[in-house]
Amino acid sequence: MGKKIVIIGGVAAGPKSACRVKRLMPDAEVTIIDQDNLISYGGCGIPYYVSGDVSDEKELRNTSFHMTRDEAFFLKAKGVTAKTNTRALSIDRKEKLVLVEDITSGTQESIPYDNLVITTGARPNVLPIPGADLDGVFTISDLHKAIAIKERIAKGEVSRVVVIGGGAIGIEMAEAFTDLWGIETTILEFMPQIMPRLVDWDFAKMLETHLQESGVTVFTGEAASAIEGKDGKVCRVVTPKRTLEADLVVMAVGVRARSELAQAAGLLVSPMGNIVVNERLQTSDPNIYAAGDCIEVKNIITGKGSIAPMGSLANREGRIVGDNLAGIPTKYKGWIGSFIMKAFEHSIAATGLSLDAALAEGFAAAAVTTAQSDRAHFFPTQAVIPLRIIFDTKTRKVLGCQGFGPMSDAVLARIDAAAAIIGQGGTIDDLSQLEMAYAPPFATALDALNATANVADNLAAGRLRYVSTREFLNWMDDFASQPDWVALDLRHSNEAGSFVEKYTKEKWLSVPYIEIRDRYQELPKDKTMLIICDAGTRSSEIQIVLDHFGLTNNLVLGGGFNLIRRMGVAWWPN
Amino acid sequence: MGKKIVIIGGVAAGPKSACRVKRLMPDAEVTIIDQDNLISYGGCGIPYYVSGDVSDEKELRNTSFHMTRDEAFFLKAKGVTAKTNTRALSIDRKEKLVLVEDITSGTQESIPYDNLVITTGARPNVLPIPGADLDGVFTISDLHKAIAIKERIAKGEVSRVVVIGGGAIGIEMAEAFTDLWGIETTILEFMPQIMPRLVDWDFAKMLETHLQESGVTVFTGEAASAIEGKDGKVCRVVTPKRTLEADLVVMAVGVRARSELAQAAGLLVSPMGNIVVNERLQTSDPNIYAAGDCIEVKNIITGKGSIAPMGSLANREGRIVGDNLAGIPTKYKGWIGSFIMKAFEHSIAATGLSLDAALAEGFAAAAVTTAQSDRAHFFPTQAVIPLRIIFDTKTRKVLGCQGFGPMSDAVLARIDAAAAIIGQGGTIDDLSQLEMAYAPPFATALDALNATANVADNLAAGRLRYVSTREFLNWMDDFASQPDWVALDLRHSNEAGSFVEKYTKEKWLSVPYIEIRDRYQELPKDKTMLIICDAGTRSSEIQIVLDHFGLTNNLVLGGGFNLIRRMGVAWWPN
Repeated sequence: MGKKIVIIGGVAAGPKSACRVKRLMPDAEVTIIDQDNLISYGGCGIPYYVSGDVSDEKELRNTSFHMTRDEAFFLKAKGVTAKTNTRALSIDRKEKLVLVEDITSGTQESIPYDNLVITTGARPNVLPIPGADLDGVFTISDLHKAIAIKERIAKGEVSRVVVIGGGAIGIEMAEAFTDLWGIETTILEFMPQIMPRLVDWDFAKMLETHLQESGVTVFTGEAASAIEGKDGKVCRVVTPKRTLEADLVVMAVGVRARSELAQAAGLLVSPMGNIVVNERLQTSDPNIYAAGDCIEVKNIITGKGSIAPMGSLANREGRIVGDNLAGIPTKYKGWIGSFIMKAFEHSIAATGLSLDAALAEGFAAAAVTTAQSDRAHFFPTQAVIPLRIIFDTKTRKVLGCQGFGPMSDAVLARIDAAAAIIGQGGTIDDLSQLEMAYAPPFATALDALNATANVADNLAAGRLRYVSTREFLNWMDDFASQPDWVALDLRHSNEAGSFVEKYTKEKWLSVPYIEIRDRYQELPKDKTMLIICDAGTRSSEIQIVLDHFGLTNNLVLGGGFNLIRRMGVAWWPN
Repeated sequence: MGKKIVIIGGVAAGPKSACRVKRLMPDAEVTIIDQDNLISYGGCGIPYYVSGDVSDEKELRNTSFHMTRDEAFFLKAKGVTAKTNTRALSIDRKEKLVLVEDITSGTQESIPYDNLVITTGARPNVLPIPGADLDGVFTISDLHKAIAIKERIAKGEVSRVVVIGGGAIGIEMAEAFTDLWGIETTILEFMPQIMPRLVDWDFAKMLETHLQESGVTVFTGEAASAIEGKDGKVCRVVTPKRTLEADLVVMAVGVRARSELAQAAGLLVSPMGNIVVNERLQTSDPNIYAAGDCIEVKNIITGKGSIAPMGSLANREGRIVGDNLAGIPTKYKGWIGSFIMKAFEHSIAATGLSLDAALAEGFAAAAVTTAQSDRAHFFPTQAVIPLRIIFDTKTRKVLGCQGFGPMSDAVLARIDAAAAIIGQGGTIDDLSQLEMAYAPPFATALDALNATANVADNLAAGRLRYVSTREFLNWMDDFASQPDWVALDLRHSNEAGSFVEKYTKEKWLSVPYIEIRDRYQELPKDKTMLIICDAGTRSSEIQIVLDHFGLTNNLVLGGGFNLIRRMGVAWWPN
């Protein structure tokens, strides 16, 4: 007989480990245990099932060749036994037994293993606020919750939703409610920006503006303090600032590892509750492996361990566990944090660390932002894709990259390419010379990502001085804060005209890019000029020209008005 | 006064060098010389100008902020003098002078330089066949030719075009003629496949089939032996096999460096006629730099020098020349050969070496091909993107990657990511662990590129035995050639049924994937089974299962019928 392998947890990492090891050791006896009756589904597809893009939950459990991944499928196709509705109660490491209980019948049995794999995943956090247990308050923990939500919507029971948490899942769910169902949806985010830590403030702001434009109400810096109901059913969400009516509340405030079983078995677990594994994904008991949302994995950039609850990583890790179970010593290098998200007509993506995260980690980090075209500017479908590179000014290593653009794969392409460079420990010079594929329908001759790396190079070399969008916006809100600042607007005078009119010639100088060399003597020597154009490119050039003419008291608005316009400001002249 | 820099050649690398050095050394005196009156245009945009996607040739000369890059623009915006209609006649390296002639007036003058930059580009090859000089025979050498072609079309003078050369430019032009103008267009390619050396046969075949479906006639392995005309105007193209009527002929059969000026000045030029430069893009005279289509640059993968005539590289090289002119010792690592091309409703792209090229270079190369979804298979817009990875079986280094898919950026994303790995000298393991961004609207949890790297890993480890698409197709054309081969079709029986009917139960076995473990005993032991499914994934699994049951005489059809269907075959049952 072959090796006995028992896997606890039947979604993503678990089935992947099972199938991989069966392919490498066809005579292994592999058993998957799961307390649910639905297994091996694409959990990341839940928002698209709720929205209706995916009509049937079965599609989330189907293979690409339209077979449903149920118990019979695993047995017939993979030779793997899947025991559903079966809860693992405890692990006897000495005897190598897992005690399980059939949830329906209550029958218990001990299943022997040579190797055990723990892929118990994560559970959603529930805020400790009054009303969190009311009927109609959901976390997005499994497919059953998704089915229940969609049923309520289909029955017409839901006209107002409050989503607590402005991370990826909260936003994807908000889109699902709003886009197809026309439900009045509000996102509450406790932090000062949505997608905190994932992207920096500028990118979060562009996304937030697009969400608002698309009909989602977003409140940042605002926590839910209570959920109120009537007859046990949710009615409203209370914050320190307002009360929001709601027939349904989604709580999407992060997850934590399900590691109780591992902990009870005496396996090493991190202070945060994540199962500790080595590079081969072995726990502190070498016969027991773990993978997916329940483990602590090393971030390649910071070298620190943390939970990394992403379906893409769970699948990678599952394969690595399968290899090691079969005696192939594959190692997991760690993760960097690549993600992408659809939000209505836009996409947002990032890889590596945000500037905030990089600074918090102690890197000598800096960031540059551009707002250039995704394809040749003469190609009809071209669009602006703001990109940001975060890098270490000492080592020149790329630490992170963020992108925002239309709903296409344009941002994906740049983020995947940057992820490859970051994963290989590459520098901004590597990113500058990265030979991206070019033709006018797909890119610019010097790709926007290369160009952004070049801007990073200029910044690193001291050839560029920036004003951040945040500082600029603060100034626009309160001119008194920086009395000696003036805008130097390089755009065509018909674009700059309304700004000069609104903000006066004292605060807003209009000198078109092409005329600077002839007219620089008109410019003030006693003021700090904030140089503005659409993409930031002309501004950077003109900074050098002005410096050359001795007018060195100037700063470039990186990413220019292409960025500001997407962030949305109240002060834009009509 | 600043350094005197003279640049010969006003498209791509030349203007880029000029602008970069002016940004680094604002007091440099920079002069661009060009024999043309149009400079700094996006030559890669010519097919889109001819097609009408780009309405005015000026758009190819405009900046993203809608200013035309003419002499006045360079002077006012960049502080660079552009002398157009001016031909460089000779270089006096001792006196550091360039002798130039005003083409209109015939006046000559000597322009002194401290540094010279040669960016003279390449000229299209003209086949030495009768009639190549007839009116109506065009090469795509500059914007004037494009304007002339479009004028003829607009006047209604063109109803049939023959494009000689099935490389990227030939195909892009063929699309331009066919798509908007409805011109009857034929491509003649001398080699046995279109895009020779750029992609392998399978990918060329998928593209060719799509071209044919889109109305372009393609003949491969067929050379133009003569062009015939009447009253000096082209009428037809003659091949050894047929005569093709034509009002217009495009000759797109490669380019060679314009290096006569450099050669006459005694600069080192390769046997192929490319200007030899070092990593800082200095010629054999350290005061003279060269960049763009006229130079020989090192291929990072092969270590060999060659011409690399691509607009994307010219721009990168121009920047590096600018750096070095200003005393920043930036080095050019070399090129790998990334490209992408739109062809009607599809895109095709590659980076690095094709399998053919890798084998010809002496690598112990192997290739795997997959045909998986670009996004989650349950997401409505998902499509199959065949991907191929070429790798070195000894070092596991990735040598190349090819992709074919719908007209989106899906293929771009995978090729750019692979280009990053190849440029960094990465292995198939790096590609397997490359953390690509995931969400169902953009990718599969394990991206198609990661999955292809995993297949490469399986092949490298001896866990996979292939039949190539070519061998398979040969067999389908002639069953007698392999009398002991049978197909083992794993698809649903309703898909396989018509094949069994057409090819008989002796040659075509239908056993659905899910039933193999129950029915393997029905399978023949004395035959070589070619295992077939849609994507190749199920086949690979079943190979392992059959091997385990002792039925080891079997081969997987990599990429499966997803690939075959796109390649187009006459034998598909109705």
